[in-house]
Formats: sequence, structure tokens, C-alpha cells
Amino acid sequence: MPSVQKQTYAQRASKHANPAAKALLETIERKKSNLCVSVDVTKQADFLRIIDVVGPYICLVKTHIDVVEDFEPSLIDRLKELSMKHDFLIFEDRKFADIGNTVALQYSSGVYRISSWSHITNAHPVPGPGIVTGLASVGQPLGRGLLLLAEMSTKGNLATGAYTAQAVEIARAHRDFVIGFIAMRRMSEDNDEDFLILTPGVGLDSKGDAMGQQYRTPREVVFESGCDVIIVGRGIYGKGGDEEVKAQAERYRKEGWAAYEERIRA
Amino acid sequence: MPSVQKQTYAQRASKHANPAAKALLETIERKKSNLCVSVDVTKQADFLRIIDVVGPYICLVKTHIDVVEDFEPSLIDRLKELSMKHDFLIFEDRKFADIGNTVALQYSSGVYRISSWSHITNAHPVPGPGIVTGLASVGQPLGRGLLLLAEMSTKGNLATGAYTAQAVEIARAHRDFVIGFIAMRRMSEDNDEDFLILTPGVGLDSKGDAMGQQYRTPREVVFESGCDVIIVGRGIYGKGGDEEVKAQAERYRKEGWAAYEERIRA
Repeated sequence: MPSVQKQTYAQRASKHANPAAKALLETIERKKSNLCVSVDVTKQADFLRIIDVVGPYICLVKTHIDVVEDFEPSLIDRLKELSMKHDFLIFEDRKFADIGNTVALQYSSGVYRISSWSHITNAHPVPGPGIVTGLASVGQPLGRGLLLLAEMSTKGNLATGAYTAQAVEIARAHRDFVIGFIAMRRMSEDNDEDFLILTPGVGLDSKGDAMGQQYRTPREVVFESGCDVIIVGRGIYGKGGDEEVKAQAERYRKEGWAAYEERIRA
Repeated sequence: MPSVQKQTYAQRASKHANPAAKALLETIERKKSNLCVSVDVTKQADFLRIIDVVGPYICLVKTHIDVVEDFEPSLIDRLKELSMKHDFLIFEDRKFADIGNTVALQYSSGVYRISSWSHITNAHPVPGPGIVTGLASVGQPLGRGLLLLAEMSTKGNLATGAYTAQAVEIARAHRDFVIGFIAMRRMSEDNDEDFLILTPGVGLDSKGDAMGQQYRTPREVVFESGCDVIIVGRGIYGKGGDEEVKAQAERYRKEGWAAYEERIRA
């Protein structure tokens, strides 16, 4: 069997035991898109408009629901409708980072009830294995999947070396719920385990921002580093009207897919 | 000048440049309480009732505002009223953990507008210095203070060794806004810098929970480890009616203060 990064998304989908991971891999294959758009805007109307425009080009939308100033519960219904209309999954980028008892409440309860609508969410491994136990107690019965932040894209970040290695160990101990990593490169070469790698900090036109974000191209991320999904934010929606947003989404989709095809052929 | 942990809270208050840290130290001295109560309940009514009961015994209330299911913006007004009535500060335990651009939005915007009411908040250092820059851009003009999570109380946590040391370095580079740490012991012996140490995982009757939380006594935390504020949650409000909650709050206040008096006398 070829290594995970030489297998097609379809081959991996057929074998994956977690429902959210399986659905994401199937969506990627069906839409020929490994593009996740990160939508960080503070108005409901902008949020829904951008997602409706980029929807046809993405496998996944990444949200920070807690930055929406005029949030109402109906926003979640609209988001779910767009997810059906355009055939993508939802990933609330909550970066849970508390003790097990607290994250279980933050995931299931409160205003946002994240577990009720977000197929995938993520957590920092820094609190130790208890954070996964806490989130799994809520998400696993719902068929959700969790990504651990094994690495970050920002300058001077501390998710390196032993920290990253321990993140992988925590994931291995909970493979039924932890479906992969937020990371900058493939984390494991073990062909018996298929961890998805979702990678932020992707941009074609900028090298970074003033607050430490650093960018790489889709080819660097997917072909050179063996990652599975590229996460693009302001590079797509930060540039103007709907036509421009659509053009950028298609541009990134195409670049990400070409890098994947180059990888499985190589 | 004696080391920071041999100085009184009043002495430290008189010298501290950050408005939130100064106010907290003054409150501790005035109320003879280094007790922070962590209120993790999912109903507004319980939230307000517990805080009203424990209010006289605490210097600080620690909230997870995002677990309150029936949250309405008026809850913040009620919380601020209780803060005035009982003379305590507010610490939203948000554990920010994203890139600078995102945390700035999460802190200022969204449904909760945390920066508008929480005197103190906290962040994980894992994204690197950019997280402090992002939060400071919002909180510093408002006179807020930030705690970095240098250590955690949970089993198998990754905030150790080089990670903890780097947290201290990030704090030192932003001393006007970073007022201290969530940690299990004093982080610095440099008498020119006064970092407050707030310590979770404090309990008198239990050694831990099923999700990896581990408990130490107020004396272990304040006298032996040199910490400044004890954070107690379920040990105070998890035990029954209002009279019992009040009795537990007074019990922890007394234990925490005795440990402090023993420390400055020793």
C-alpha cells in the first residue's frame, strides 16, 4: 500500500472510520477541491454573502462564530442551508484550550452550541489528554471529528519539537475522534493511520501580516509538505467585490488541486 | 527590597503600573481575600446567585461566559452591578489561543465584547508574541490586564520546561499589558518585575476529577509555591445550598489569607 500522501482522497475516504473525516475526504474528491475558506468577518450579512460566493469552490468553511457582532441563532440555520446548497462541511475554528470539564460545556452549551452544527472543530493539546476526553464525550456520539493543533503558522510560536511530538501521541491514543492535525507538514508516516493535515497560513500574494502571520503557497503546502487541505482567509475575501472573491476562490482551488495531482503522480 | 513574594499586597499595589493589576492587589488587601471563584454554570440565574453569595469573600470572579446557555447581554450589566456591590474584579477565562488578528476580534467583538467588561483575561502563549500584540491593541487602551498561561493544573499537560520559559520571555517583552501568569508556582525571582501568579486546581476536599484535573491546597499554593491568588470552582459552589456555598467561600478565603500571612512572616 502506498504511503498516505500518495493515496487519492477517494482511496482514503473508503477506509476512514470517522464519519466527519470520511465525509470531508469524499467531498474533496467529488468537488476536486482541497480548499477551506476561513471567513473572519463581524457581520452576519458579510459572513453569509462570502460563503455563498465561495461555496462552489470549497470542501470546507472555517468559522470563528464568536467574532460575529450581530449573531442570532438563525445564522446557524442559514449556514447549514449553504452547506447543503454548495456541498461543503463546517469547521468551527474554536481552538479549545481548557480542561476537559470546561471544554465539554463550551462545545455543547452556551449561545453557540458548536457541537450541534460544526462537523469538525479543533483543540490545542496543551492541557493534556483530558481535553480530548472532554470533547469526545460530546462530539463522538454525534459523529464529529477533532483536529489537534500540532503546529502553527505564526512567527515565534511554541508548537514545535517535543510539543508537536506529544500532540501526535495524544492523537494516536484517541484515533476514533481525533481525525488529524492543524500543522504545516505531514505528521506521521505510519500507513496504518490516516491523519488529515489542514494547513493555515496559505497565500499567493502576501508573505505575512503585522501580527506575526506568515504565508506559504498551495504548492509548498500540498506538494512539498504533504498536507491535505489548504486554509485561505483574507487572500480570498479581502480583495473586493463578489466577482473578485469568486475568482480568487477558483484560483486557490485550482492551485491546491494541481499540487495534489502533482503529489500523487510524483 | 524584599523579594516580591515577601512583600505585602499593599506594597505591591502601590508600585504596579498596570491599572488592572493595581486594582486587583488593592482589592485583595482591602478585603483580605486572595480568593478567586470560578463560576462554570450554564444558567444565568445560577450564575448570578452564586456570585451574589460568594461576592463578599472574593477579590475576583472568573467566568466562562460562553457556557451560559440562556445568555443575554443584560447578564453583563448584572455582573457589573455585582462587581460594584461586592467590590471584586472580573476575569473572563477565555484562554485566547489564536493568531493576533483573530484574537483582537474575539476580544473586542462578537456577542460577548469581552474587552468591554472583563478587567483581566488570559491567553495561551503557544501562537507566539503576536497573540499579545493582538490583544494589547484592544485591551491596553482600556486599562485591561492579560495573564499568560505559563503552566496548567491538568495531568499530562504540555506547558512545561522550555514552553513555560518562553511564556515568561513573551511576558517580559510586554510588561505594560501582561500582568502575570496562570501558573502553579512563582515564575520569576527578579525583584524589578512584579508578575501576579493566579493558580487553578485548588481544592481542600478532592484530589481531582475524571478528566485530568488535579487539586492542591491553598497552603501548598500560596505558602509553599509563592502564588498570589487561589482559583476555586466546584469546591465552593458544587456542594449544595447558599449557606453551604457561603461557608465554603469563607473557608477558602480564610485558608488562602492565612497562607499569605504565613508567607510574608516566614
